[in-house]
Amino acid sequence: MNIGIIGLGLIGGSMAIDLRRKGCASRILGVENDPVNASAAEHIGLVDSVVTLEECVGKSDVIIVSVPVGAALKIVPKVLDIMADLYPEGGCGKVLMDVCSTKESLAEAVKYHPMRKNYVASHPMSGTEYSGPWAAIPGLFDGRACIICDFNESSPQAVRTVEKIYDVLNMRVVYMNSSSHDVHTAYVSHFSHVISFALALTVLEKEKDEKHIFDLASGGFSSTVRLAKSNADMWTPIFLQNRENVLHVMDTYTAKLEAFRKAIDESDEEAIRKLIMDANRIRRIIR
Amino acid sequence: MNIGIIGLGLIGGSMAIDLRRKGCASRILGVENDPVNASAAEHIGLVDSVVTLEECVGKSDVIIVSVPVGAALKIVPKVLDIMADLYPEGGCGKVLMDVCSTKESLAEAVKYHPMRKNYVASHPMSGTEYSGPWAAIPGLFDGRACIICDFNESSPQAVRTVEKIYDVLNMRVVYMNSSSHDVHTAYVSHFSHVISFALALTVLEKEKDEKHIFDLASGGFSSTVRLAKSNADMWTPIFLQNRENVLHVMDTYTAKLEAFRKAIDESDEEAIRKLIMDANRIRRIIR
Repeated sequence: MNIGIIGLGLIGGSMAIDLRRKGCASRILGVENDPVNASAAEHIGLVDSVVTLEECVGKSDVIIVSVPVGAALKIVPKVLDIMADLYPEGGCGKVLMDVCSTKESLAEAVKYHPMRKNYVASHPMSGTEYSGPWAAIPGLFDGRACIICDFNESSPQAVRTVEKIYDVLNMRVVYMNSSSHDVHTAYVSHFSHVISFALALTVLEKEKDEKHIFDLASGGFSSTVRLAKSNADMWTPIFLQNRENVLHVMDTYTAKLEAFRKAIDESDEEAIRKLIMDANRIRRIIR
Repeated sequence: MNIGIIGLGLIGGSMAIDLRRKGCASRILGVENDPVNASAAEHIGLVDSVVTLEECVGKSDVIIVSVPVGAALKIVPKVLDIMADLYPEGGCGKVLMDVCSTKESLAEAVKYHPMRKNYVASHPMSGTEYSGPWAAIPGLFDGRACIICDFNESSPQAVRTVEKIYDVLNMRVVYMNSSSHDVHTAYVSHFSHVISFALALTVLEKEKDEKHIFDLASGGFSSTVRLAKSNADMWTPIFLQNRENVLHVMDTYTAKLEAFRKAIDESDEEAIRKLIMDANRIRRIIR
């Protein structure tokens, strides 16, 4: 099948690699606004060629939108508009999917679009702290979870096509509505990034006085601060669009941090021990 | 040389493995209060035999204290007492070292001890989130930093012996006083654990309502929450003894978190982007 990928960064690029090497994509067309990224994506061979949005939609059976979620809010309806223009009599068999990390605002943006059935909202839960076409790697999605949202709003044929793509990518598909998706991801993905950004800022501030503080950075620190390398273009719109859920998690988190502060401040050994042992229950979940 | 290891957990056990396989230890005696751990350490072959504290000190050239720092506050002076008893006329060539994660309270505890010169305070900056003799692994210390504190308080011969041991373990030795050590480790090790424990507590609380929230846990979440598996016996005394420094870091961190909260709450795109890009400066430090 012909696949079009709009946004040739880490996710779009890694999908291109695996969809091609697993024989799912016979031709891959890319759309990329950034000329450096566009030429890199062609040069690396992620796509057969970089084309205009219109050409990409016209020549592809499946169109994957893999741009930051702020841009996706405009591009997803626009792709549906192009589809509607191409098939004024109906009968469009093309499938549009996105891979964005927030889903509720996108669901709102296309809610009443006449081509809504051709669009499947999805979120493959995988990534690294790197970005751009150079960051694309094979096997990025292997064995990870992928969420398909609001599948009743899409045509069964479109959902089956997207399921097939995620099957090729070796992902485990989970179904939920956009609203639940945004709550869950605030907890198990988005807020971890806030934590990590704040830790980086804290230690970087200290570094002004203590030049060698990072000489001692332990493996534990590296693991906790890793996400602070994540890209602002991707994460700014995520926090904007999942604002309420992220703030809600932050309030719970601040209360837990405050409990630690109180226990340590009061040198309350039993309270510290209990907090740690309660937190240790995470062992049964994260191996 | 004969080496005695007091406390046969992750750190003591991993030292035993590498000091033996690299030919540095001809015989290793262990001291371990927990009978299950003691028999495991013998069974795995971490030590040649588990003996009493007195026998261990009497028969070893170098004694390594690798117990949680609360217990170390009692054991380190006690080992020095035993040395003093064994050599009432002076001339004791034995070396005592510890591997604890906080150093200032230990320095205070032995400050005026007549055998102070035989003790070297050190902290190998390595570990995992697991504990006990079963967690011991070869190569745990390879290429990591190790801090030797207050070396002027120890005899040059004792310092050289300890340097040799860390050289065998392939560690990079850094020198600083106990007080600086405790400040630095609060930033680049201890506080990361508080962050991670609080994240675990936050998501575990949500799990009461949302049973499947962890099905979606991403790689980013796992990395940030990994340290929350760390052992309460080890970490409770660290927070107690490095109380002031940890609280100080927590206050800076809370201010950074609050800056994120304000920016997200006000949907202030530029402020969020700036915070993320400032945090991204961590890229030049953590690869």
